[in-house]
Amino acid sequence: MPRDFRQKLHEIIYEADTPEGKLFDVVLLILIVISIVAVMLESVAGIKIVYGKELNIIEWVITAFFTIEYIARIISVKKPASYILSFYGIIDFLAMIPKYIDILFPGLGFLISIRALRLLRVFRILKLGRFVGASNQLVTALKKSKVKIAVFLFGVVIICIIMGTLMYIIEGPKSGFKNIPISIYWTIVTLTTVGFGDITPITPLGQFLSAVIMIMGYGIIAVPTGLVTAQFMQESKIQQNTQVCRVCNADHHRDDARYCYNCGSHLNK
Amino acid sequence: MPRDFRQKLHEIIYEADTPEGKLFDVVLLILIVISIVAVMLESVAGIKIVYGKELNIIEWVITAFFTIEYIARIISVKKPASYILSFYGIIDFLAMIPKYIDILFPGLGFLISIRALRLLRVFRILKLGRFVGASNQLVTALKKSKVKIAVFLFGVVIICIIMGTLMYIIEGPKSGFKNIPISIYWTIVTLTTVGFGDITPITPLGQFLSAVIMIMGYGIIAVPTGLVTAQFMQESKIQQNTQVCRVCNADHHRDDARYCYNCGSHLNK
Amino acid sequence: MPRDFRQKLHEIIYEADTPEGKLFDVVLLILIVISIVAVMLESVAGIKIVYGKELNIIEWVITAFFTIEYIARIISVKKPASYILSFYGIIDFLAMIPKYIDILFPGLGFLISIRALRLLRVFRILKLGRFVGASNQLVTALKKSKVKIAVFLFGVVIICIIMGTLMYIIEGPKSGFKNIPISIYWTIVTLTTVGFGDITPITPLGQFLSAVIMIMGYGIIAVPTGLVTAQFMQESKIQQNTQVCRVCNADHHRDDARYCYNCGSHLNK
Amino acid sequence: MPRDFRQKLHEIIYEADTPEGKLFDVVLLILIVISIVAVMLESVAGIKIVYGKELNIIEWVITAFFTIEYIARIISVKKPASYILSFYGIIDFLAMIPKYIDILFPGLGFLISIRALRLLRVFRILKLGRFVGASNQLVTALKKSKVKIAVFLFGVVIICIIMGTLMYIIEGPKSGFKNIPISIYWTIVTLTTVGFGDITPITPLGQFLSAVIMIMGYGIIAVPTGLVTAQFMQESKIQQNTQVCRVCNADHHRDDARYCYNCGSHLNK
Repeated sequence: MPRDFRQKLHEIIYEADTPEGKLFDVVLLILIVISIVAVMLESVAGIKIVYGKELNIIEWVITAFFTIEYIARIISVKKPASYILSFYGIIDFLAMIPKYIDILFPGLGFLISIRALRLLRVFRILKLGRFVGASNQLVTALKKSKVKIAVFLFGVVIICIIMGTLMYIIEGPKSGFKNIPISIYWTIVTLTTVGFGDITPITPLGQFLSAVIMIMGYGIIAVPTGLVTAQFMQESKIQQNTQVCRVCNADHHRDDARYCYNCGSHLNK
Repeated sequence: MPRDFRQKLHEIIYEADTPEGKLFDVVLLILIVISIVAVMLESVAGIKIVYGKELNIIEWVITAFFTIEYIARIISVKKPASYILSFYGIIDFLAMIPKYIDILFPGLGFLISIRALRLLRVFRILKLGRFVGASNQLVTALKKSKVKIAVFLFGVVIICIIMGTLMYIIEGPKSGFKNIPISIYWTIVTLTTVGFGDITPITPLGQFLSAVIMIMGYGIIAVPTGLVTAQFMQESKIQQNTQVCRVCNADHHRDDARYCYNCGSHLNK
Repeated sequence: MPRDFRQKLHEIIYEADTPEGKLFDVVLLILIVISIVAVMLESVAGIKIVYGKELNIIEWVITAFFTIEYIARIISVKKPASYILSFYGIIDFLAMIPKYIDILFPGLGFLISIRALRLLRVFRILKLGRFVGASNQLVTALKKSKVKIAVFLFGVVIICIIMGTLMYIIEGPKSGFKNIPISIYWTIVTLTTVGFGDITPITPLGQFLSAVIMIMGYGIIAVPTGLVTAQFMQESKIQQNTQVCRVCNADHHRDDARYCYNCGSHLNK
Repeated sequence: MPRDFRQKLHEIIYEADTPEGKLFDVVLLILIVISIVAVMLESVAGIKIVYGKELNIIEWVITAFFTIEYIARIISVKKPASYILSFYGIIDFLAMIPKYIDILFPGLGFLISIRALRLLRVFRILKLGRFVGASNQLVTALKKSKVKIAVFLFGVVIICIIMGTLMYIIEGPKSGFKNIPISIYWTIVTLTTVGFGDITPITPLGQFLSAVIMIMGYGIIAVPTGLVTAQFMQESKIQQNTQVCRVCNADHHRDDARYCYNCGSHLNK
């Protein structure tokens, strides 16, 4: 295979700078979306009976394309192993393989729905056009609050384990809280204010502790919110204050300011 | 029809500057509210049996008024088509027509409840009096966060599709998660912390993934909150500046600004 | 009755400046709390059977005190009518009267639980000691966001009415959405992310609209949060910046600053 | 016992500065986690049948270690009583004792799950490494909002008691709202937007009041969020100042400070 062809292929598949690269990305995204819609529709019993055949054909066509794409990705990259073992490499493989397995083991056909993971590639479109700024800011702010959010989640998990165990002791194994993992699951359901209601406390003491858990959950949601908000505000501040007046050193000018608000001298941009 | 009359009619119906225009708006709003209350009451079986006749008369009177209003709106506007095909034009038509259809096809009488959409006209009162500032600020702040909120919602939808599909694979089609669309619906119910409890995971792995989805939903609500809060804060900062430059008419100066950021001339305080 | 005694009585009952006034307030609060605990316990069937007699005695003693207090309030105030018809006057009357009614009409005894409303008097303790600042700040911030919160709630109610009606049209009167008021109630349950699950959509279109309502509710909670946060921040800013340097006019000093951060001159406190 | 040994033991057990101290902490944490996983697994009926024997052995080994640790803690501290009666002392005792009780009274074996409380020691790792800053900031911000959060929770509890009682009066003791404590529990479930759905209002008036409670809960969550956010923002503002006055060692200066706010001496940048 000529090295030139491989390089061209790499450019088209892995990059989005050239028109061909962009076209490939768009076609791929459309195919992923079609494939996921097909998988979704096939999972609905009523639709499968009527349109099962058509959906099967669509899935085979897309599987064929995905297979070609997978092979192309392998041959165009310098170190195939690094792609094959990468996160996206594994997803691409998992998205392609179930249809082939289905021939050998018909019962495993539902595994094709794992194809939905390919949707993660959709996040590439966030790298295009006017979404760049917005998504970058979101990601940056979340990354900066990372450690604090980790500490917070750690605390939440500890609270859930302790409270879940206490609920198990109070309500006892004969109620809906039949073991500790289930009780912890219930505590998470309650603390996050989801509240399915499939398991509910019956004893007065259990209901009292539940009330405490709920009010706790209602209150501590303030923590991640406060963290992210404070981070967003700092980001937006940084965005505004890039220039400093050369004459009086005043900063915090408006983004579109042409003159210093403090001494009236002209600002260089 | 004299042109003068049409112009007068247009002023009354479409504008709210003249006393007649305001009166028309208020009367229309009252009629819309009465009409919706009547439709609501009629939908309650117990009330319909006792007061059905009276409610029917009220609905016909209001339908007659709505019909006259609809015709008046068409004849008073220069390009009737633009009104008829506009958002409000279609709603006005849909609010009026079901009562007439009901004579021909009695079974479709319940469609009259679509009249509730006319309530959207109530937002006109936000353009009156002391609500103007408040609603403008809310709308402005939301508009400015638009792109970021779109990116966030896009991410949430992708997460819901992927998580919903995984839950379908884990819980299997024999549980409440009987197909992928239902699983995605369930994931949205859970991620938004609504948690109806009509469908709940039964397998330990399913419950573990549910817990992950819940904590995720509990945490990422911080993102829209942070975005909107940061935006509100910036709005309220800008609000503090009430002075306008006498030379170039630029406004939104910093509170402590002494010189115009746009033309550099001195500001009087 | 000597005028002096009435004035003294007024001071004790209505004011909290004198030691007697404070004592009266504390005793009253304790009696209200005891009375409410008694009412609560009596409502529990198991407890009423065993301790019904004792609880009845406690309630009569407290009712006697409340009656004396009510009469004392009337005779000590200059215009008795203004107290009797005031918000607290009506609550005080409602808290006292059910026990007497109970003798005449035994079935209405449960009305005594309306006594819980007297708990509102507990908010008086927020006027004492170190809670003053904190509760004032909370109340001030909420009052300042009042108009914006009203506009927001108005929008939420309109959305609930329209969405509730649409859900009624989609799900039809034979489902759980049996009439429009119930559908609107369900929409509020869903939009606020409470999600009882007693009524759930069954049709795919209904589930889709539900998902839209949920994501809406998940997102727009950002609005009141943003409003209140922005208000709190402005409050806390105002609290900090009370002094301005006499030499260079710099402001925004730390609360405990003794020297100007800008020119180093001494600050007067 | 030589005094030297006791001091060494104290250093290892109570402090984390020496390598041995750190090792002890890590080993202890690992044992606590293993012990809790064992307790959890044992509570699951299916697992207990198969692996009951192995889990029992693990629990005895850990109980033995915990017993040694408990004794070591007592003998190494100067005033054993102060440890025994401290919060952690009681937890350590409760974590150790149920296994011994189980021999005498086999039915109480499930009390061993109280061992989960030892997880609280895990918070020690927050004192290690890069989590220190983040967790300190979280704790500081929460501590500073303490009084305001207390006032807020106080208000929420009063609202829940009053609303719960009103719901009991409206829905009556024959519905799910069978007594006032249950009604208050339901109000907390609803106000915090958890919404189990095990108890739901049936009367129109009850549903209306529920809707009011929900919208209230949806709105007032803004208060703790706003408080904590405002506090975080102030913390992060203070954080930006990294310089310390060379004369008086005061820190937390404004970013643009040129003179020390405490002693007025010039700051070098």
